[in-house]
Amino acid sequence: MNANGVLVPWEGLDRRLGPWPPGIEVRVWDGGAGEPALPQRALDSVGLWVMPYAVPDAHRLLPRLPGLRAVQSLSAGVEKLRPLLPAGVALHNGRGLHDASTAEHALALILAAQRELPRWAADQHAGRWAPHFTRSLADSRVAIIGYGSIGRALESRLLACEAEVVRVARRPRPAEDVHPVSELPAVLREVDIAALVLPQTPATTGLLGAEELAALPDGALVVNVGRGATLDTGALLTEVGSGRLRAALDVTDPEPLPAAHPLRRAPGVLITPHVAGGSASFRPRAEKLIGEQVRRWAQGAALLNPVGEE
Amino acid sequence: MNANGVLVPWEGLDRRLGPWPPGIEVRVWDGGAGEPALPQRALDSVGLWVMPYAVPDAHRLLPRLPGLRAVQSLSAGVEKLRPLLPAGVALHNGRGLHDASTAEHALALILAAQRELPRWAADQHAGRWAPHFTRSLADSRVAIIGYGSIGRALESRLLACEAEVVRVARRPRPAEDVHPVSELPAVLREVDIAALVLPQTPATTGLLGAEELAALPDGALVVNVGRGATLDTGALLTEVGSGRLRAALDVTDPEPLPAAHPLRRAPGVLITPHVAGGSASFRPRAEKLIGEQVRRWAQGAALLNPVGEE
Repeated sequence: MNANGVLVPWEGLDRRLGPWPPGIEVRVWDGGAGEPALPQRALDSVGLWVMPYAVPDAHRLLPRLPGLRAVQSLSAGVEKLRPLLPAGVALHNGRGLHDASTAEHALALILAAQRELPRWAADQHAGRWAPHFTRSLADSRVAIIGYGSIGRALESRLLACEAEVVRVARRPRPAEDVHPVSELPAVLREVDIAALVLPQTPATTGLLGAEELAALPDGALVVNVGRGATLDTGALLTEVGSGRLRAALDVTDPEPLPAAHPLRRAPGVLITPHVAGGSASFRPRAEKLIGEQVRRWAQGAALLNPVGEE
Repeated sequence: MNANGVLVPWEGLDRRLGPWPPGIEVRVWDGGAGEPALPQRALDSVGLWVMPYAVPDAHRLLPRLPGLRAVQSLSAGVEKLRPLLPAGVALHNGRGLHDASTAEHALALILAAQRELPRWAADQHAGRWAPHFTRSLADSRVAIIGYGSIGRALESRLLACEAEVVRVARRPRPAEDVHPVSELPAVLREVDIAALVLPQTPATTGLLGAEELAALPDGALVVNVGRGATLDTGALLTEVGSGRLRAALDVTDPEPLPAAHPLRRAPGVLITPHVAGGSASFRPRAEKLIGEQVRRWAQGAALLNPVGEE
């Protein structure tokens, strides 16, 4: 008989979502350090595991889940998780859960850079009051590189800010006016801001390298809320070091960024520690997905967000 | 004969806007320190003066403009300028010129506070990489206090960010779902963010005082991009000092904020030096208004943006 229990990362979901479907045993593991406080018998019955979010070593539980048939990750990017799963275990990702949060953080980074918030915060504490004109987002042209669901969420925010958007994705979609990445150098020559929203795959690694960065006009801003390795750190350091480009990065390569890494002190660079997806707007959306997946699991229906092979 | 010359703050407007109307002499004074490099004879012919933007002592030229009949300020708020003008000189303000820039800066402040950018910037330089969940703007409820043209521009940006908006203005406009300020305490109890976008008048001075701040829920954010004196600095200091409220302020009272003012070091407070209106998106909009006003001036037509008595 197939194990049909479910393991979820948060307590109290049934209080917020309504009762679990009959016949489904739901247990909780939050991914905290140490051994899960669950008997092996309970783990044996787990067929669907909703993994704890942003717990890098949560996969340590895998050897204790012999009946596992499906894994729900709450991340959009599952490139590190995929190779760790046993054969035959279906993988589902958190596509869409982070759209609002990630697009919002990208917008926050863009606005902070254009309106020089890091400078004003430094002036605040240094006792200075020295206003000057800044760039704006309004009237700027922004390339969204990786035009998927997060890219669309970013686009609607940028348009509300009176910016212009150029869409770029790995595959051209002329009907949607999406340019292929092969046209990047030509696209980048015409934009003020390049926003990277790409997953990490062999095809996207190092996609924005020295040649692409060189195509950007003087003073342009490079934003990355996708994966650090899609942007060539060395090439970026050269461009920001000379003061020719600016950068606002939520993801870096390597990550975590070492304490003494030169990117931390480079001029015109703002860094946040991979927090774009992790804001208050994530949790209600994640809980809603879990509720729907458990309902589908109980009915033997196909789960949402299956991840194919890249 | 009436003086019908025009004095503008920028060179080269006719190159960008097209030739000036025939019969109108246009001269330039940028408000720079020292005496204007214009003969008194030229100043005698000035009937319309477009004042330099963000030059606090530009009014020093007034005694040298005997033929002055109309003043165009490029600021939205003209409360300090109005009493300095001779009787009979019409005043026109920069309504609308700063909408995009000011709304954008308000959004930048809100996002920086919700997503904790000042903390991450400090961590960046201190060598830390310690991500945690933050608040979001999405799903938040924002009171826009002073629902005019800047408020509307802010609203469209907030809605694109999946926030909810509550409109408040000095006069109720039930058809537009605008609450009167008399309902502020009740409105403030239900919001996560209070954004002040008010001009300074006797009626708005100290509008957000101890009682209104006390109505806000724990952890709420107070944003001010209007005028500093509409928010009671002492009452705010008490609330941020205890850690109960947060603040992001582009305008302060007093202003400039003294180097040793306690607001600069208060926890959870982000300050920018009155730069909301001063970004790249202002200049093209201001130049377009100047072109239109000079065209109307030449035709003897009514100028745009007249300022009545408050």
